[in-house]
Amino acid sequence: MASYTAAPLARLVDQFESLPGIGHKSALRLAYYIIGQPEETAKQLASSILEARNTIHYCSICCNLTDQELCPICRNDARDKSVICVVEEPRDISALERTQEFNATYHVLHGAISPLSGIGPEELCIKELLNRVHQGGIREVIMATNPTVEGEATAMYISRLLKPLGVKVTRLAYGIPVGADLEYADEVTLARALEGRNEI
Amino acid sequence: MASYTAAPLARLVDQFESLPGIGHKSALRLAYYIIGQPEETAKQLASSILEARNTIHYCSICCNLTDQELCPICRNDARDKSVICVVEEPRDISALERTQEFNATYHVLHGAISPLSGIGPEELCIKELLNRVHQGGIREVIMATNPTVEGEATAMYISRLLKPLGVKVTRLAYGIPVGADLEYADEVTLARALEGRNEI
Repeated sequence: MASYTAAPLARLVDQFESLPGIGHKSALRLAYYIIGQPEETAKQLASSILEARNTIHYCSICCNLTDQELCPICRNDARDKSVICVVEEPRDISALERTQEFNATYHVLHGAISPLSGIGPEELCIKELLNRVHQGGIREVIMATNPTVEGEATAMYISRLLKPLGVKVTRLAYGIPVGADLEYADEVTLARALEGRNEI
Repeated sequence: MASYTAAPLARLVDQFESLPGIGHKSALRLAYYIIGQPEETAKQLASSILEARNTIHYCSICCNLTDQELCPICRNDARDKSVICVVEEPRDISALERTQEFNATYHVLHGAISPLSGIGPEELCIKELLNRVHQGGIREVIMATNPTVEGEATAMYISRLLKPLGVKVTRLAYGIPVGADLEYADEVTLARALEGRNEI
């Protein structure tokens, strides 16, 4: 920030700019917005940040984010505890929950195996998943990692660890997205959709 | 936020979502980012927000934002204090300073006259500008409000108040933006560019 900007303002802009997806102009806009708001608004934002950072940790069963011992899904008795859907990030749970088609539990890996970024299996919550399966009572593990190279590699790696434990391991289906135009589907997706075709 | 999200996380997402230009997905992303950062990062962000909100106020001369009695520009003795450039918002100063062509002072109105939004002249820092001119020593006032209906109206309104005080009032030139394509210039801008043509 240039010298004609007040120091506390410049510091706030710098802080906002360090957040993901926020550039210099957005950071400026946010900073000016906060300065123009009642003091209570700034206090609430600051305390929400501290509260979330200090109270949120991993669920001791599924590694989802929670402020209690267990996350709301693991606490819910109506959920089928014998099926685990493995996802990369907590936000993937929101996506799957929106389908309203899934009533079992999740396991959050907090990333995918990516040797290029220096993320190996030990950086992810894989041993927690193996522990859950070891404890028994698990019928099926659904691999719902992203359909990327890293996601695929992670799904393959975990399925190889789980198979010897005698648990059924499945993967989300590949195919054409609903509502999309066939013309714009890439060839790999289309090939997978052909391969996985179902009788109607 | 759905019931499967931890409450402090949901509150933080709501807080981020209430900021301008941040939608639900960006808010989620920011919240997850902060939770994943060291505690120190969250503390710094929270304290920057509070510090900026609590220490920043208007410069007693030009109404720019500052944490001291005077803003850095009004404090700077190398600046020509006899010319005032009137802008709508503090961020407009950054834009003008980047030209490195202007070495005088500013006056920030904090908005523009807009009867539709209920913003009249008394909501803006206009009387502070009149006081500065009344105190004497001002050669020229440059109206650099936005080239919008509200900015134009504000420039006209202020110039009518300043003219009787015997001060020279000017307005930024209209014309085609440098580097743009004539083909895409709108007709009003082009008409103003023709009107204001200069001999070369």
